[in-house]
Amino acid sequence: MVLLRTSLLFRFIPILTWLPRYPVKEWLLGDIISGFSVGIMHLPQGLAYSLLAGLPPVVGLYSAFYPVLVYFFFGTSRHISVGPFAVISVMIGSITDSLEPSGKFMEADNDTNVPILNEAKRDAARVQLAAALTFLVGIFQIALGLLQFGFLATYLSEPLVRGYTTAAAIQVLISQLKYVIGVELEEYAGPLALIYTFLELCSKLPKTNVGTLVTSLIAIISILIVKKISDKLGKRIPVPIPTELLTIIIATGISYGAKLNGRFNISVVGEIPSGLVPPKAPVVSYFGQVIGNAFAIAVVSYVICVSLGKIFAFKHGYKVDSNQELIALGLSNFVGGFFQCYSIGCSMSRSLVQESTGGHSQVSAAVSCLLLLVTILKISELFRELPKAILAAIILVNLKGMFKQFKDIHTLWKSNFVDLLIWLVTFVATILLNLDMGLGVAVVFSLLTVIFRTQMPHYSILGQVSKTGIYKDAAEYQKAEEIPGVKIFRSSATIYFANAALYEEALKTKCGIDVEHLIEKKKKALKKKHNKDKKEEKKAKVFLWLKVTLFICFSQEPRGDTTANGPSGSVDDQKYQNLKQPQSSDQPGLMALGLEKPPFHSIILDFSPVNFVDTVSIKTLKNIFKDFQEIEVNVFLVGCNDSVISQLERGNFFSQNITKHHLFASLHHAVSYITRNQEELPPTDRVSNLCSMP
Amino acid sequence: MVLLRTSLLFRFIPILTWLPRYPVKEWLLGDIISGFSVGIMHLPQGLAYSLLAGLPPVVGLYSAFYPVLVYFFFGTSRHISVGPFAVISVMIGSITDSLEPSGKFMEADNDTNVPILNEAKRDAARVQLAAALTFLVGIFQIALGLLQFGFLATYLSEPLVRGYTTAAAIQVLISQLKYVIGVELEEYAGPLALIYTFLELCSKLPKTNVGTLVTSLIAIISILIVKKISDKLGKRIPVPIPTELLTIIIATGISYGAKLNGRFNISVVGEIPSGLVPPKAPVVSYFGQVIGNAFAIAVVSYVICVSLGKIFAFKHGYKVDSNQELIALGLSNFVGGFFQCYSIGCSMSRSLVQESTGGHSQVSAAVSCLLLLVTILKISELFRELPKAILAAIILVNLKGMFKQFKDIHTLWKSNFVDLLIWLVTFVATILLNLDMGLGVAVVFSLLTVIFRTQMPHYSILGQVSKTGIYKDAAEYQKAEEIPGVKIFRSSATIYFANAALYEEALKTKCGIDVEHLIEKKKKALKKKHNKDKKEEKKAKVFLWLKVTLFICFSQEPRGDTTANGPSGSVDDQKYQNLKQPQSSDQPGLMALGLEKPPFHSIILDFSPVNFVDTVSIKTLKNIFKDFQEIEVNVFLVGCNDSVISQLERGNFFSQNITKHHLFASLHHAVSYITRNQEELPPTDRVSNLCSMP
Repeated sequence: MVLLRTSLLFRFIPILTWLPRYPVKEWLLGDIISGFSVGIMHLPQGLAYSLLAGLPPVVGLYSAFYPVLVYFFFGTSRHISVGPFAVISVMIGSITDSLEPSGKFMEADNDTNVPILNEAKRDAARVQLAAALTFLVGIFQIALGLLQFGFLATYLSEPLVRGYTTAAAIQVLISQLKYVIGVELEEYAGPLALIYTFLELCSKLPKTNVGTLVTSLIAIISILIVKKISDKLGKRIPVPIPTELLTIIIATGISYGAKLNGRFNISVVGEIPSGLVPPKAPVVSYFGQVIGNAFAIAVVSYVICVSLGKIFAFKHGYKVDSNQELIALGLSNFVGGFFQCYSIGCSMSRSLVQESTGGHSQVSAAVSCLLLLVTILKISELFRELPKAILAAIILVNLKGMFKQFKDIHTLWKSNFVDLLIWLVTFVATILLNLDMGLGVAVVFSLLTVIFRTQMPHYSILGQVSKTGIYKDAAEYQKAEEIPGVKIFRSSATIYFANAALYEEALKTKCGIDVEHLIEKKKKALKKKHNKDKKEEKKAKVFLWLKVTLFICFSQEPRGDTTANGPSGSVDDQKYQNLKQPQSSDQPGLMALGLEKPPFHSIILDFSPVNFVDTVSIKTLKNIFKDFQEIEVNVFLVGCNDSVISQLERGNFFSQNITKHHLFASLHHAVSYITRNQEELPPTDRVSNLCSMP
Repeated sequence: MVLLRTSLLFRFIPILTWLPRYPVKEWLLGDIISGFSVGIMHLPQGLAYSLLAGLPPVVGLYSAFYPVLVYFFFGTSRHISVGPFAVISVMIGSITDSLEPSGKFMEADNDTNVPILNEAKRDAARVQLAAALTFLVGIFQIALGLLQFGFLATYLSEPLVRGYTTAAAIQVLISQLKYVIGVELEEYAGPLALIYTFLELCSKLPKTNVGTLVTSLIAIISILIVKKISDKLGKRIPVPIPTELLTIIIATGISYGAKLNGRFNISVVGEIPSGLVPPKAPVVSYFGQVIGNAFAIAVVSYVICVSLGKIFAFKHGYKVDSNQELIALGLSNFVGGFFQCYSIGCSMSRSLVQESTGGHSQVSAAVSCLLLLVTILKISELFRELPKAILAAIILVNLKGMFKQFKDIHTLWKSNFVDLLIWLVTFVATILLNLDMGLGVAVVFSLLTVIFRTQMPHYSILGQVSKTGIYKDAAEYQKAEEIPGVKIFRSSATIYFANAALYEEALKTKCGIDVEHLIEKKKKALKKKHNKDKKEEKKAKVFLWLKVTLFICFSQEPRGDTTANGPSGSVDDQKYQNLKQPQSSDQPGLMALGLEKPPFHSIILDFSPVNFVDTVSIKTLKNIFKDFQEIEVNVFLVGCNDSVISQLERGNFFSQNITKHHLFASLHHAVSYITRNQEELPPTDRVSNLCSMP
């Protein structure tokens, strides 16, 4: 009991497992260096991403501190850098824009009576909204983790996630362009918001603030150049050049010195409060409005973290526990919800730096937290004069990696068309709708591709490869020859409601005979025979009547009613019963009716690709058996797996006419059985086969 | 060319094919009798269903005339009776209620100034709306038919359609109860409308109009009794008793004689105009509002018609062309849209009567049209005094068959759980949302069941059944024995993004060894060896340096730079290269590293149940190959069908380490090849297998 509790404790708080075994001598130095590098990135990214989320800059710094600290204790990935993340930030941005739009906080100016924006009030409301959302995201993630729903990530397949993040990058790009060219835009929400924003942006291009544009362009170009140099130097410098940090320091300096805000009307970050804030309970009244978005954010942030974590884990040979990751992220967000943080994700660029600068464990995250703490307490207020355009530039440069994902289109085009379709649909849906609805559409679509993939299968008639036990498509392989009198039919996919009718049709076409026509002909022949029989009967009746009359006339004996009507009545009754069951085995065969037999005596349906059967496919199968038995062809099922057999049983597939003797374990056994028995026994007398094993 | 045109003509106008060959002597009498029976049913049903659709009664009569006449020319089913249908009528009813609610037509009375309903105006608007809708439905159906979209019906599997029609029956029941108890209700629309209506109905129970209730109850009971008698008499009477016609005739008589409307305030049908109306173009402005509903109605009416048509066709041995059916129904609705008709479906009860009274072809439909024409021109106005409660009673009695579908729950519970789920979800969604949204949810859900069905497959390790070529689950079949050194692994389902991770996990678990742990151990051992090698190298270097120094000191010859550094440098280079490719085949084996080998040398993955592969499953497969090859286990794929092989090729699955020599056509061949070759050849030298056939 105690042992169980301890092991549960160790599972839920992984730091208890790995910290005591921490190899200080080998890992500590690398972790400190990587922690410093990541911490230095956190500062500009935190400021920039909070801009993206429509929140005051300090919130980004909080979000790079509290949740990261919590993840340090509960996370199982050693290399991912959790914290503010572009995709999640833009998702939050669309929510803050739509629920607390600037228009809500316009107040009449005391002097001029012109409505102006009360930014302080708006920001306060948005911070509360974001915190409530973060709290909810945390609750969702913890709940999913405890319920072992880590497998949810499998529904977001790789093409989907890549298409989604690419679309998110476009969303980020469009949302930042207004800062780059320095214009004010309306805030749009809901479907097509991106398109509206883009159109307005285009219409406002002439109003570009040249100063802002120049600032942004210089910043973008210099960051790109320095990054290039840093990459070139590569391993020759111990830590990468903190490009972004340098940019914001220099930019702040210039802005302060040249009074950019005052002289060129370039918008700057503004007041950043120093110090930490006391915890505050999230505002419950927001919950109802954001519950859907919270779920979407919970899933997206989890999926991106866990997939990145798994890549690193695979590279370095350790394991990431997906359910524990959910709990760790959930707790990070949960705690963040009390400290004005917004939902975190895990940034690809920071994680790569964390790994490449020699980080071995989450100790580096702890180091970065320390750095952040110092920044929040002492330094952050210095960035008051930082132009927003610089932050936009940093965000845009960081999108580079995500834009590279457009190459996927080419790769997927060559490798897998359906996955390409998933990528494209996800991308377009996320661009046109917004990030949450787009995700929903993408998930449903990617699940439906399973239908497309099995809807139009390849149907083939198989032949035996010269004397071996191998059966291949007779139309494609020259060496595969059809067995005389036996048609072996295979569909490349499971048979279920969406393709059952097609299966039946393909089978009848591939067999090369018109089954319906044959059955109709048989029915007509039967009717004809029946009419003929009836006429003869009538004749016989008249004859009998004549005989009886004559007998009565001549013998003068009393008339026996029963004898006269008896035989005739019973003959009629019997005929009637025969007609009532035209399918019964008592009916005359095709030969007896003067009809030709089909050119084969058996059909084998290869069921090895069948994953499951439903009521529709069972009905179709029954029809196939009935139709072919009608024209004296035996049907056999081969290679059903055990679950399919039990589904057939439950679905009342087996009957007097379809028994388990129609099942065989393998094609070869069925073929040799059929060829051996065909001439010896009538079809109904077959007893032994290889499927009725205990 | 002319031949092609003629054959197309014959295909699009089936009457050209069958009418010239019509066996007058054998079929005509039956068709006339059945046409009369159906026509007699059309009259009360037309009046009743138009009540359901929220339209004036005469519209129901028009809808039983024009579209049926069109179908006579274009339809391919000989036995279905198209025309007003309960499910479609209630769908239209919800649209008329929400788009043209009574509230819109309240006008202040001239004298009292109390707002009263202008029924004439409302009805006119509703008729226009219904006609526009019908026109659109027709356009959709024709377009779908021309585009050969008849297969759409397969998405609406039988459990779905039955669940849906049962829910529709409940909708009809609730919508009619107000006429039965004689109260006025609000008109609700959108999700949960049914629940609101039901709640209001309950709250208004005390206000029941006793006269109306008694009328309805008497009507329901007498119709039920007469139907029972008619059934009992069965074949002994040539045509079934026209219960409903008798009911409305008698009820109208009583209502007229007893002045029910005036005395007991029982609401009656009211004015019915005589004669036909001239055609009128549909009102285009409605199109935008009803386009979604039109599509839903188009699909539902088609699916119900074609499935009923197929049942009769199967019974009587002819074929129904699903695309032509779409076109025929589409043309019927299209034409109907010009003549104030509302969308038609095909009523089960009428179709059964049409077939059972000896109908052989659509000639019976033409006969019923004649009857309808006479009714519309001369008789219909007589039914002015018919109480609406009687029509409600007729509708309710006709629901009996649909309510019987509740038995499906029991049947499906026993036969197929997932299909039961489809039934229930369809039912609940259609009850809670409305008929169009419910249908959407149901279709998506039924498609997603394919995911559930393949998400959690059954994984098994197979064993050979004593000396045969049959392989069965070794854990379940005693006779199946595992091949020593070979693990044969099978999943019962296709491997794709939703279960690929599970597949890998299950494989590694079922193999009984901790693959990751082994790989980690190997990596550690390699590192250790590398460090040891390095130390020895250093030693050797020192030794060499000593030797060289000593040599120089003692021999006094000039120092040869190249000779001294050459060998040492080249050794280093080689080592480095070896380390850069730790997975290469040059690395030392497990044995050489002092590690134990796994207890098996080969894994065979049975891929016969695999329908397709996507990028996720290919990645997973690659991982499996890599991991197992790392611990010196060969992996083979068996039974891939041709499309899977080509998908693997396109997805860049094959590489230096994974060649087509890892593919085998059948389990037995793979096993015999492996057991034959295991001791003879190293794994990389294997050349021939049975898959590389031309």
